[in-house]
Amino acid sequence: MRRIRLTVAYDGTNYVGWQVQPNGVSIEEILNRELSRMLKEKITVIGASRTDSGVHARGNICVFDTESRIPGDKFKFAINESLPPDIVVQESEEVPPDYHPRKVRSIKTYEYRILNRVLPDPLERLNSYFFYYPLDVEKMRKAAEVVVGEHDFKSFCNIRASVKTTVRTVYSLTIEKTGDMITLRIVGNGFLYNMVRIIVGTLVKIGCGLWPLSKMQEALDACDRSAAGPTAPAKGLTLISIVEQDQGAAEEETDE
Amino acid sequence: MRRIRLTVAYDGTNYVGWQVQPNGVSIEEILNRELSRMLKEKITVIGASRTDSGVHARGNICVFDTESRIPGDKFKFAINESLPPDIVVQESEEVPPDYHPRKVRSIKTYEYRILNRVLPDPLERLNSYFFYYPLDVEKMRKAAEVVVGEHDFKSFCNIRASVKTTVRTVYSLTIEKTGDMITLRIVGNGFLYNMVRIIVGTLVKIGCGLWPLSKMQEALDACDRSAAGPTAPAKGLTLISIVEQDQGAAEEETDE
Repeated sequence: MRRIRLTVAYDGTNYVGWQVQPNGVSIEEILNRELSRMLKEKITVIGASRTDSGVHARGNICVFDTESRIPGDKFKFAINESLPPDIVVQESEEVPPDYHPRKVRSIKTYEYRILNRVLPDPLERLNSYFFYYPLDVEKMRKAAEVVVGEHDFKSFCNIRASVKTTVRTVYSLTIEKTGDMITLRIVGNGFLYNMVRIIVGTLVKIGCGLWPLSKMQEALDACDRSAAGPTAPAKGLTLISIVEQDQGAAEEETDE
Repeated sequence: MRRIRLTVAYDGTNYVGWQVQPNGVSIEEILNRELSRMLKEKITVIGASRTDSGVHARGNICVFDTESRIPGDKFKFAINESLPPDIVVQESEEVPPDYHPRKVRSIKTYEYRILNRVLPDPLERLNSYFFYYPLDVEKMRKAAEVVVGEHDFKSFCNIRASVKTTVRTVYSLTIEKTGDMITLRIVGNGFLYNMVRIIVGTLVKIGCGLWPLSKMQEALDACDRSAAGPTAPAKGLTLISIVEQDQGAAEEETDE
Protein backbone atom coordinates (compact mmCIF):
# COMPACT_ATOMS: atom_id res chain seq x y z
CA MET A 1 0.00 0.00 0.00
CA ARG A 2 1.36 3.41 -0.94
CA ARG A 3 0.28 6.85 0.27
CA ILE A 4 0.02 9.61 -2.34
CA ARG A 5 -0.29 13.32 -1.62
CA LEU A 6 -2.10 15.63 -4.05
CA THR A 7 -2.01 19.43 -4.21
CA VAL A 8 -5.41 20.45 -5.50
CA ALA A 9 -6.66 23.71 -7.04
CA TYR A 10 -10.36 24.34 -7.53
CA ASP A 11 -13.01 26.91 -8.27
CA GLY A 12 -15.40 26.39 -5.35
CA THR A 13 -18.36 28.11 -7.04
CA ASN A 14 -20.25 24.97 -7.97
CA TYR A 15 -19.47 22.88 -4.90
CA VAL A 16 -20.82 22.55 -1.35
CA GLY A 17 -17.23 22.75 -0.12
CA TRP A 18 -14.42 20.24 0.39
CA GLN A 19 -16.30 17.81 2.57
CA VAL A 20 -19.04 15.38 1.51
CA GLN A 21 -22.45 16.92 2.27
CA PRO A 22 -25.96 15.63 1.74
CA ASN A 23 -27.10 18.78 -0.10
CA GLY A 24 -24.78 18.85 -3.09
CA VAL A 25 -21.53 17.81 -4.71
CA SER A 26 -18.24 18.28 -2.84
CA ILE A 27 -14.62 18.39 -4.05
CA GLU A 28 -13.79 15.35 -1.89
CA GLU A 29 -16.61 13.38 -3.47
CA ILE A 30 -15.42 14.10 -7.02
CA LEU A 31 -11.85 13.11 -6.13
CA ASN A 32 -13.02 9.88 -4.43
CA ARG A 33 -15.23 8.99 -7.37
CA GLU A 34 -12.69 9.70 -10.12
CA LEU A 35 -9.70 8.18 -8.28
CA SER A 36 -11.72 5.03 -7.51
CA ARG A 37 -12.81 4.76 -11.14
CA MET A 38 -9.30 5.30 -12.45
CA LEU A 39 -7.51 2.98 -10.01
CA LYS A 40 -10.29 0.34 -9.82
CA GLU A 41 -10.15 0.24 -6.01
CA LYS A 42 -12.09 2.15 -3.37
CA ILE A 43 -10.26 5.42 -2.72
CA THR A 44 -10.99 7.78 0.19
CA VAL A 45 -9.03 11.01 0.27
CA ILE A 46 -8.19 12.86 3.51
CA GLY A 47 -7.98 16.64 3.06
CA ALA A 48 -5.77 19.06 4.95
CA SER A 49 -8.34 21.87 4.92
CA ARG A 50 -12.10 21.39 4.70
CA THR A 51 -12.89 24.57 2.82
CA ASP A 52 -16.46 25.85 2.96
CA SER A 53 -18.98 26.02 0.15
CA GLY A 54 -17.92 28.61 -2.43
CA VAL A 55 -14.33 28.93 -1.12
CA HIS A 56 -11.61 28.41 -3.73
CA ALA A 57 -8.16 26.85 -3.51
CA ARG A 58 -4.89 27.04 -5.37
CA GLY A 59 -3.14 24.60 -3.06
CA ASN A 60 -5.27 22.46 -0.79
CA ILE A 61 -3.66 19.14 0.11
CA CYS A 62 -5.05 15.63 0.43
CA VAL A 63 -3.73 12.06 0.64
CA PHE A 64 -5.01 8.62 -0.27
CA ASP A 65 -3.76 5.06 -0.12
CA THR A 66 -3.53 2.90 -3.19
CA GLU A 67 -2.20 -0.40 -4.51
CA SER A 68 -1.42 1.30 -7.81
CA ARG A 69 2.13 1.27 -9.20
CA ILE A 70 1.79 4.61 -11.03
CA PRO A 71 4.85 6.75 -10.07
CA GLY A 72 3.91 9.43 -7.51
CA ASP A 73 4.58 12.39 -9.78
CA LYS A 74 2.53 10.89 -12.65
CA PHE A 75 -0.76 10.66 -10.74
CA LYS A 76 -1.55 14.29 -11.48
CA PHE A 77 -1.59 13.76 -15.24
CA ALA A 78 -3.68 10.60 -14.98
CA ILE A 79 -6.31 12.01 -12.63
CA ASN A 80 -6.59 15.40 -14.39
CA GLU A 81 -7.81 13.54 -17.49
CA SER A 82 -11.05 12.65 -15.74
CA LEU A 83 -11.58 15.62 -13.40
CA PRO A 84 -13.98 18.42 -14.35
CA PRO A 85 -12.27 21.67 -15.50
CA ASP A 86 -12.95 23.42 -12.16
CA ILE A 87 -10.77 20.94 -10.22
CA VAL A 88 -7.12 20.48 -11.27
CA VAL A 89 -4.45 18.55 -9.38
CA GLN A 90 -1.29 20.66 -9.43
CA GLU A 91 1.20 18.27 -7.81
CA SER A 92 1.34 14.62 -6.79
CA GLU A 93 3.99 12.67 -4.89
CA GLU A 94 4.43 9.60 -2.77
CA VAL A 95 4.70 10.25 0.99
CA PRO A 96 5.49 7.97 3.97
CA PRO A 97 2.55 5.72 4.98
CA ASP A 98 2.23 7.44 8.39
CA TYR A 99 1.95 10.92 6.90
CA HIS A 100 -1.39 12.59 7.75
CA PRO A 101 -2.20 16.03 6.30
CA ARG A 102 -4.07 17.21 9.39
CA LYS A 103 -1.44 16.00 11.85
CA VAL A 104 1.44 18.01 10.48
CA ARG A 105 2.47 21.54 11.45
CA SER A 106 2.05 23.84 8.52
CA ILE A 107 1.92 27.43 7.40
CA LYS A 108 -1.31 28.28 5.64
CA THR A 109 -1.80 31.24 3.33
CA TYR A 110 -5.21 32.58 2.35
CA GLU A 111 -6.15 35.43 0.04
CA TYR A 112 -9.35 37.43 0.21
CA ARG A 113 -10.33 39.75 -2.67
CA ILE A 114 -12.70 42.69 -2.31
CA LEU A 115 -13.89 44.55 -5.40
CA ASN A 116 -14.46 48.09 -4.15
CA ARG A 117 -16.31 50.12 -6.77
CA VAL A 118 -19.71 51.58 -7.59
CA LEU A 119 -20.88 48.75 -9.87
CA PRO A 120 -20.11 45.02 -9.90
CA ASP A 121 -17.71 43.57 -12.48
CA PRO A 122 -19.21 40.44 -14.07
CA LEU A 123 -15.72 39.11 -14.84
CA GLU A 124 -14.73 39.20 -11.16
CA ARG A 125 -18.02 38.07 -9.64
CA LEU A 126 -17.05 34.47 -8.83
CA ASN A 127 -13.86 35.11 -6.89
CA SER A 128 -14.27 38.47 -5.20
CA TYR A 129 -16.63 40.18 -2.77
CA PHE A 130 -18.27 43.21 -4.37
CA PHE A 131 -18.45 46.05 -1.85
CA TYR A 132 -20.01 49.37 -2.80
CA TYR A 133 -18.97 51.83 -0.06
CA PRO A 134 -15.42 53.23 -0.37
CA LEU A 135 -12.93 51.45 1.87
CA ASP A 136 -10.05 53.24 3.58
CA VAL A 137 -7.20 50.80 2.92
CA GLU A 138 -4.77 52.65 5.20
CA LYS A 139 -7.19 52.32 8.11
CA MET A 140 -7.73 48.64 7.31
CA ARG A 141 -3.94 48.11 7.35
CA LYS A 142 -3.71 49.66 10.82
CA ALA A 143 -6.55 47.46 12.09
CA ALA A 144 -4.91 44.42 10.49
CA GLU A 145 -1.79 44.92 12.62
CA VAL A 146 -3.87 44.05 15.70
CA VAL A 147 -4.48 40.45 14.64
CA VAL A 148 -0.84 39.69 13.79
CA GLY A 149 0.83 37.52 16.44
CA GLU A 150 -0.34 34.78 18.80
CA HIS A 151 -3.84 35.49 20.09
CA ASP A 152 -6.99 33.83 21.28
CA PHE A 153 -9.18 34.21 18.18
CA LYS A 154 -12.40 33.07 19.88
CA SER A 155 -14.23 36.19 18.66
CA PHE A 156 -13.27 35.29 15.08
CA CYS A 157 -14.69 31.78 15.04
CA ASN A 158 -18.10 30.49 14.11
CA ILE A 159 -19.11 27.45 16.09
CA ARG A 160 -18.92 24.18 14.21
CA ALA A 161 -16.73 21.46 15.64
CA SER A 162 -15.24 21.68 19.11
CA VAL A 163 -11.59 22.69 19.14
CA LYS A 164 -9.17 22.20 22.04
CA THR A 165 -7.95 25.78 21.86
CA THR A 166 -8.87 28.93 19.96
CA VAL A 167 -5.33 30.29 20.17
CA ARG A 168 -3.66 30.69 16.77
CA THR A 169 -0.69 32.60 15.40
CA VAL A 170 -1.09 34.96 12.46
CA TYR A 171 2.36 35.58 10.95
CA SER A 172 1.28 38.37 8.61
CA LEU A 173 -1.76 40.13 7.20
CA THR A 174 -1.05 42.41 4.26
CA ILE A 175 -3.49 44.49 2.22
CA GLU A 176 -2.75 45.60 -1.34
CA LYS A 177 -4.90 47.65 -3.69
CA THR A 178 -4.60 47.40 -7.49
CA GLY A 179 -7.21 49.41 -9.36
CA ASP A 180 -10.55 48.62 -7.67
CA MET A 181 -9.37 45.31 -6.26
CA ILE A 182 -8.27 45.07 -2.63
CA THR A 183 -6.37 41.85 -1.88
CA LEU A 184 -5.83 40.73 1.71
CA ARG A 185 -3.21 38.04 2.27
CA ILE A 186 -3.07 36.29 5.61
CA VAL A 187 -0.46 33.77 6.73
CA GLY A 188 -0.78 31.70 9.90
CA ASN A 189 -0.16 28.37 11.60
CA GLY A 190 -3.84 27.44 11.37
CA PHE A 191 -7.22 29.08 11.15
CA LEU A 192 -10.41 28.49 13.09
CA TYR A 193 -13.71 27.91 11.31
CA ASN A 194 -14.51 31.05 9.25
CA MET A 195 -11.65 32.93 10.97
CA VAL A 196 -10.33 34.61 7.82
CA ARG A 197 -13.80 35.62 6.68
CA ILE A 198 -14.70 37.12 10.08
CA ILE A 199 -11.41 39.06 10.21
CA VAL A 200 -12.25 40.40 6.72
CA GLY A 201 -15.83 41.22 7.77
CA THR A 202 -14.46 43.21 10.73
CA LEU A 203 -11.88 45.03 8.59
CA VAL A 204 -14.60 45.99 6.11
CA LYS A 205 -16.74 47.47 8.92
CA ILE A 206 -13.73 49.56 9.97
CA GLY A 207 -12.62 50.39 6.42
CA CYS A 208 -15.98 51.86 5.43
CA GLY A 209 -16.15 53.94 8.62
CA LEU A 210 -19.07 52.16 10.32
CA TRP A 211 -16.77 51.07 13.14
CA PRO A 212 -13.80 52.95 14.67
CA LEU A 213 -10.28 51.54 14.34
CA SER A 214 -10.29 50.63 18.05
CA LYS A 215 -13.00 48.05 17.41
CA MET A 216 -10.48 45.49 16.15
CA GLN A 217 -8.61 45.36 19.47
CA GLU A 218 -11.92 45.34 21.38
CA ALA A 219 -13.20 42.46 19.26
CA LEU A 220 -10.03 40.45 19.82
CA ASP A 221 -10.06 41.08 23.59
CA ALA A 222 -13.75 40.23 24.00
CA CYS A 223 -13.35 36.51 23.16
CA ASP A 224 -16.94 36.66 22.03
CA ARG A 225 -18.12 36.09 18.45
CA SER A 226 -20.71 38.90 18.69
CA ALA A 227 -17.95 41.48 19.24
CA ALA A 228 -16.50 40.91 15.74
CA GLY A 229 -17.88 41.78 12.33
CA PRO A 230 -19.97 39.62 10.00
CA THR A 231 -18.58 36.63 8.09
CA ALA A 232 -17.52 37.98 4.68
CA PRO A 233 -18.86 36.02 1.65
CA ALA A 234 -17.13 32.74 0.78
CA LYS A 235 -16.51 33.55 -2.87
CA GLY A 236 -13.83 36.16 -2.04
CA LEU A 237 -11.67 33.57 -0.27
CA THR A 238 -8.93 31.37 -1.77
CA LEU A 239 -6.67 28.94 0.07
CA ILE A 240 -3.35 29.75 -1.58
CA SER A 241 -0.97 27.25 -0.04
CA ILE A 242 -0.21 24.89 2.82
CA VAL A 243 3.51 24.65 3.50
CA GLU A 244 4.31 21.77 5.82
CA GLN A 245 6.88 22.19 8.56
CA ASP A 246 7.34 18.83 10.24
CA GLN A 247 5.36 15.70 10.99
CA GLY A 248 3.45 14.77 14.13
CA ALA A 249 3.49 18.11 15.91
CA ALA A 250 0.16 19.71 14.96
CA GLU A 251 -2.05 20.57 17.92
CA GLU A 252 -5.30 19.57 16.28
CA GLU A 253 -7.27 19.60 13.10
CA THR A 254 -7.89 23.03 11.67
CA ASP A 255 -10.54 24.38 9.41
CA GLU A 256 -11.56 27.34 7.36
CA MET B 1 -38.41 59.57 -28.08
CA ARG B 2 -34.99 59.57 -26.44
CA ARG B 3 -31.87 57.58 -27.33
CA ILE B 4 -29.89 56.05 -24.47
CA ARG B 5 -26.38 54.63 -24.70
CA LEU B 6 -25.25 51.83 -22.38
CA THR B 7 -21.72 50.64 -21.66
CA VAL B 8 -22.06 46.94 -20.94
CA ALA B 9 -19.70 44.49 -19.22
CA TYR B 10 -20.32 40.76 -19.40
CA ASP B 11 -18.88 37.34 -18.82
CA GLY B 12 -19.52 35.69 -22.20
CA THR B 13 -19.13 32.12 -20.91
CA ASN B 14 -22.83 31.27 -20.81
CA TYR B 15 -23.94 33.14 -23.93
CA VAL B 16 -23.95 32.47 -27.69
CA GLY B 17 -22.44 35.94 -28.13
CA TRP B 18 -23.83 39.46 -28.42
CA GLN B 19 -26.23 38.81 -31.27
CA VAL B 20 -29.52 36.93 -31.13
CA GLN B 21 -28.98 33.33 -32.31
CA PRO B 22 -31.37 30.40 -32.66
CA ASN B 23 -29.14 28.03 -30.65
CA GLY B 24 -28.94 29.75 -27.28
CA VAL B 25 -29.25 32.91 -25.23
CA SER B 26 -27.44 36.09 -26.32
CA ILE B 27 -26.47 39.23 -24.43
CA GLU B 28 -28.63 41.35 -26.79
CA GLU B 29 -31.64 39.13 -26.09
CA ILE B 30 -31.29 39.49 -22.31
CA LEU B 31 -30.96 43.28 -22.62
CA ASN B 32 -33.99 43.51 -24.97
CA ARG B 33 -36.08 41.34 -22.66
CA GLU B 34 -35.17 43.07 -19.40
CA LEU B 35 -35.33 46.63 -20.80
CA SER B 36 -38.73 45.91 -22.40
CA ARG B 37 -40.03 44.46 -19.14
CA MET B 38 -38.70 47.37 -17.09
CA LEU B 39 -39.85 50.16 -19.42
CA LYS B 40 -43.10 48.47 -20.53
CA GLU B 41 -42.40 49.17 -24.22
CA LYS B 42 -40.72 47.10 -26.90
CA ILE B 43 -36.98 47.82 -26.70
CA THR B 44 -34.44 46.76 -29.34
CA VAL B 45 -30.81 47.53 -28.58
CA ILE B 46 -28.19 48.16 -31.28
CA GLY B 47 -24.72 47.03 -30.27
CA ALA B 48 -21.40 48.55 -31.36
CA SER B 49 -19.58 45.21 -31.41
CA ARG B 50 -21.20 41.83 -32.01
CA THR B 51 -18.84 39.78 -29.90
CA ASP B 52 -18.72 36.03 -30.56
CA SER B 53 -19.88 33.23 -28.30
CA GLY B 54 -17.64 33.01 -25.21
CA VAL B 55 -16.00 36.42 -25.74
CA HIS B 56 -16.16 38.77 -22.74
CA ALA B 57 -16.54 42.55 -22.49
CA ARG B 58 -15.71 45.26 -20.02
CA GLY B 59 -17.02 48.03 -22.26
CA ASN B 60 -19.22 47.07 -25.20
CA ILE B 61 -21.64 49.80 -26.22
CA CYS B 62 -25.28 49.72 -27.28
CA VAL B 63 -28.16 52.15 -27.74
CA PHE B 64 -31.92 51.98 -27.60
CA ASP B 65 -34.84 54.36 -28.00
CA THR B 66 -37.39 54.86 -25.27
CA GLU B 67 -40.33 57.01 -24.20
CA SER B 68 -39.15 56.72 -20.59
CA ARG B 69 -38.35 59.82 -18.55
CA ILE B 70 -35.71 58.14 -16.38
CA PRO B 71 -32.62 60.42 -16.41
CA GLY B 72 -29.89 59.01 -18.69
CA ASP B 73 -27.36 58.32 -15.94
CA LYS B 74 -29.95 56.52 -13.79
CA PHE B 75 -30.80 53.80 -16.31
CA LYS B 76 -27.79 51.72 -15.25
CA PHE B 77 -29.02 51.34 -11.69
CA ALA B 78 -32.56 50.49 -12.79
CA ILE B 79 -31.59 47.88 -15.38
CA ASN B 80 -28.86 46.26 -13.26
CA GLU B 81 -31.56 45.31 -10.75
CA SER B 82 -33.04 42.83 -13.21
CA LEU B 83 -29.98 41.68 -15.16
CA PRO B 84 -28.26 38.38 -14.31
CA PRO B 85 -24.94 38.74 -12.42
CA ASP B 86 -22.87 37.99 -15.53
CA ILE B 87 -24.14 41.12 -17.34
CA VAL B 88 -23.67 44.52 -15.67
CA VAL B 89 -24.30 47.93 -17.26
CA GLN B 90 -21.37 50.16 -16.27
CA GLU B 91 -22.52 53.49 -17.71
CA SER B 92 -25.69 54.99 -19.17
CA GLU B 93 -26.33 58.35 -20.77
CA GLU B 94 -28.65 60.12 -23.17
CA VAL B 95 -27.21 60.68 -26.67
CA PRO B 96 -28.49 62.60 -29.73
CA PRO B 97 -31.30 60.77 -31.61
CA ASP B 98 -29.12 60.35 -34.72
CA TYR B 99 -26.26 58.74 -32.85
CA HIS B 100 -25.55 55.19 -34.11
CA PRO B 101 -22.88 53.07 -32.37
CA ARG B 102 -21.74 51.34 -35.58
CA LYS B 103 -21.57 54.56 -37.60
CA VAL B 104 -19.11 56.42 -35.44
CA ARG B 105 -15.31 56.34 -35.65
CA SER B 106 -13.87 54.77 -32.59
CA ILE B 107 -10.78 53.29 -31.02
CA LYS B 108 -11.32 49.75 -29.83
CA THR B 109 -9.17 47.97 -27.28
CA TYR B 110 -9.14 44.20 -26.81
CA GLU B 111 -7.23 42.06 -24.36
CA TYR B 112 -6.30 38.43 -24.87
CA ARG B 113 -5.01 36.34 -21.95
CA ILE B 114 -2.91 33.20 -22.36
CA LEU B 115 -2.13 31.04 -19.32
CA ASN B 116 1.24 29.50 -20.14
CA ARG B 117 2.07 26.73 -17.69
CA VAL B 118 2.22 22.96 -17.36
CA LEU B 119 -1.22 22.51 -15.77
CA PRO B 120 -4.46 24.47 -16.11
CA ASP B 121 -5.58 26.84 -13.34
CA PRO B 122 -9.27 26.24 -12.52
CA LEU B 123 -9.61 29.83 -11.27
CA GLU B 124 -8.51 31.25 -14.64
CA ARG B 125 -10.25 28.75 -16.89
CA LEU B 126 -13.16 30.96 -18.02
CA ASN B 127 -11.22 33.98 -19.19
CA SER B 128 -7.90 32.73 -20.45
CA TYR B 129 -6.54 30.29 -23.01
CA PHE B 130 -4.52 27.55 -21.35
CA PHE B 131 -1.43 26.77 -23.45
CA TYR B 132 1.01 24.07 -22.37
CA TYR B 133 4.16 24.61 -24.48
CA PRO B 134 6.49 27.41 -23.29
CA LEU B 135 6.00 30.64 -25.24
CA ASP B 136 8.88 32.99 -26.08
CA VAL B 137 7.35 36.35 -25.23
CA GLU B 138 10.25 38.32 -26.70
CA LYS B 139 9.78 36.59 -30.04
CA MET B 140 6.02 37.21 -29.90
CA ARG B 141 6.69 40.91 -29.26
CA LYS B 142 8.88 41.10 -32.36
CA ALA B 143 6.21 39.36 -34.47
CA ALA B 144 3.57 41.69 -33.00
CA GLU B 145 5.40 44.73 -34.41
CA VAL B 146 4.56 43.51 -37.92
CA VAL B 147 0.82 44.00 -37.52
CA VAL B 148 1.04 47.52 -36.06
CA GLY B 149 0.04 50.17 -38.61
CA GLU B 150 -2.39 50.34 -41.52
CA HIS B 151 -2.54 47.01 -43.35
CA ASP B 152 -4.82 44.79 -45.37
CA PHE B 153 -5.74 42.19 -42.73
CA LYS B 154 -7.45 39.82 -45.17
CA SER B 155 -5.33 36.89 -43.90
CA PHE B 156 -6.57 37.57 -40.38
CA CYS B 157 -10.29 37.44 -41.09
CA ASN B 158 -12.72 34.54 -41.04
CA ILE B 159 -15.49 34.90 -43.58
CA ARG B 160 -18.84 35.92 -42.16
CA ALA B 161 -20.42 39.04 -43.56
CA SER B 162 -19.06 40.86 -46.58
CA VAL B 163 -17.01 43.92 -45.73
CA LYS B 164 -16.16 46.75 -48.13
CA THR B 165 -12.49 46.67 -47.22
CA THR B 166 -10.23 44.48 -45.12
CA VAL B 167 -7.84 47.37 -44.44
CA ARG B 168 -7.62 48.31 -40.75
CA THR B 169 -5.21 50.25 -38.57
CA VAL B 170 -3.70 48.67 -35.48
CA TYR B 171 -2.37 51.47 -33.24
CA SER B 172 -0.57 49.20 -30.81
CA LEU B 173 -0.12 45.58 -29.79
CA THR B 174 1.66 45.07 -26.47
CA ILE B 175 2.45 41.80 -24.70
CA GLU B 176 3.01 41.63 -20.94
CA LYS B 177 3.81 38.63 -18.79
CA THR B 178 2.93 38.44 -15.08
CA GLY B 179 3.67 35.09 -13.49
CA ASP B 180 2.25 32.48 -15.87
CA MET B 181 -0.20 34.87 -17.50
CA ILE B 182 0.60 36.50 -20.84
CA THR B 183 -1.68 39.43 -21.64
CA LEU B 184 -1.87 40.81 -25.18
CA ARG B 185 -3.45 44.23 -25.58
CA ILE B 186 -4.42 45.41 -29.05
CA VAL B 187 -5.74 48.84 -29.96
CA GLY B 188 -7.14 49.68 -33.38
CA ASN B 189 -9.70 51.60 -35.39
CA GLY B 190 -11.77 48.47 -35.98
CA PHE B 191 -11.30 44.72 -36.23
CA LEU B 192 -12.43 42.22 -38.83
CA TYR B 193 -14.33 39.10 -37.84
CA ASN B 194 -12.04 37.01 -35.53
CA MET B 195 -9.09 39.29 -36.39
CA VAL B 196 -7.73 39.53 -32.84
CA ARG B 197 -8.08 35.79 -32.27
CA ILE B 198 -6.30 34.93 -35.56
CA ILE B 199 -3.47 37.37 -34.76
CA VAL B 200 -3.14 35.65 -31.36
CA GLY B 201 -3.27 32.20 -32.96
CA THR B 202 -0.43 33.22 -35.29
CA LEU B 203 1.64 34.73 -32.46
CA VAL B 204 1.24 31.51 -30.44
CA LYS B 205 2.52 29.41 -33.40
CA ILE B 206 5.58 31.68 -33.53
CA GLY B 207 5.98 31.93 -29.74
CA CYS B 208 6.15 28.16 -29.24
CA GLY B 209 8.65 27.77 -32.07
CA LEU B 210 6.46 25.89 -34.55
CA TRP B 211 6.68 28.80 -36.99
CA PRO B 212 9.63 31.16 -37.62
CA LEU B 213 9.34 34.85 -36.80
CA SER B 214 9.21 35.68 -40.54
CA LYS B 215 5.84 33.90 -40.82
CA MET B 216 3.99 36.93 -39.45
CA GLN B 217 5.07 39.20 -42.33
CA GLU B 218 4.43 36.39 -44.83
CA ALA B 219 0.94 35.84 -43.43
CA LEU B 220 0.15 39.55 -43.62
CA ASP B 221 1.47 39.85 -47.20
CA ALA B 222 -0.38 36.75 -48.42
CA CYS B 223 -3.88 38.27 -48.05
CA ASP B 224 -5.05 34.69 -47.66
CA ARG B 225 -6.66 33.26 -44.50
CA SER B 226 -4.79 29.97 -44.84
CA ALA B 227 -1.43 31.76 -44.47
CA ALA B 228 -2.20 32.82 -40.88
CA GLY B 229 -2.49 30.74 -37.70
CA PRO B 230 -5.58 29.20 -36.15
CA THR B 231 -8.33 31.20 -34.45
CA ALA B 232 -7.41 31.28 -30.73
CA PRO B 233 -10.23 30.25 -28.34
CA ALA B 234 -12.94 32.82 -27.59
CA LYS B 235 -12.71 32.62 -23.81
CA GLY B 236 -9.29 34.36 -23.73
CA LEU B 237 -10.70 37.48 -25.41
CA THR B 238 -12.21 40.55 -23.71
CA LEU B 239 -13.43 43.72 -25.41
CA ILE B 240 -11.99 46.31 -23.03
CA SER B 241 -13.28 49.60 -24.41
CA ILE B 242 -14.70 51.50 -27.34
CA VAL B 243 -13.67 55.14 -27.31
CA GLU B 244 -15.65 57.18 -29.79
CA GLN B 245 -13.95 59.81 -31.88
CA ASP B 246 -16.60 61.60 -33.93
CA GLN B 247 -19.97 60.92 -35.49
CA GLY B 248 -20.77 59.85 -39.04
CA ALA B 249 -17.30 59.04 -40.29
CA ALA B 250 -17.00 55.29 -39.82
CA GLU B 251 -16.33 53.39 -43.00
CA GLU B 252 -18.57 50.46 -42.21
CA GLU B 253 -19.78 48.13 -39.53
CA THR B 254 -17.05 46.24 -37.74
CA ASP B 255 -17.04 42.99 -35.89
CA GLU B 256 -15.01 40.76 -33.68
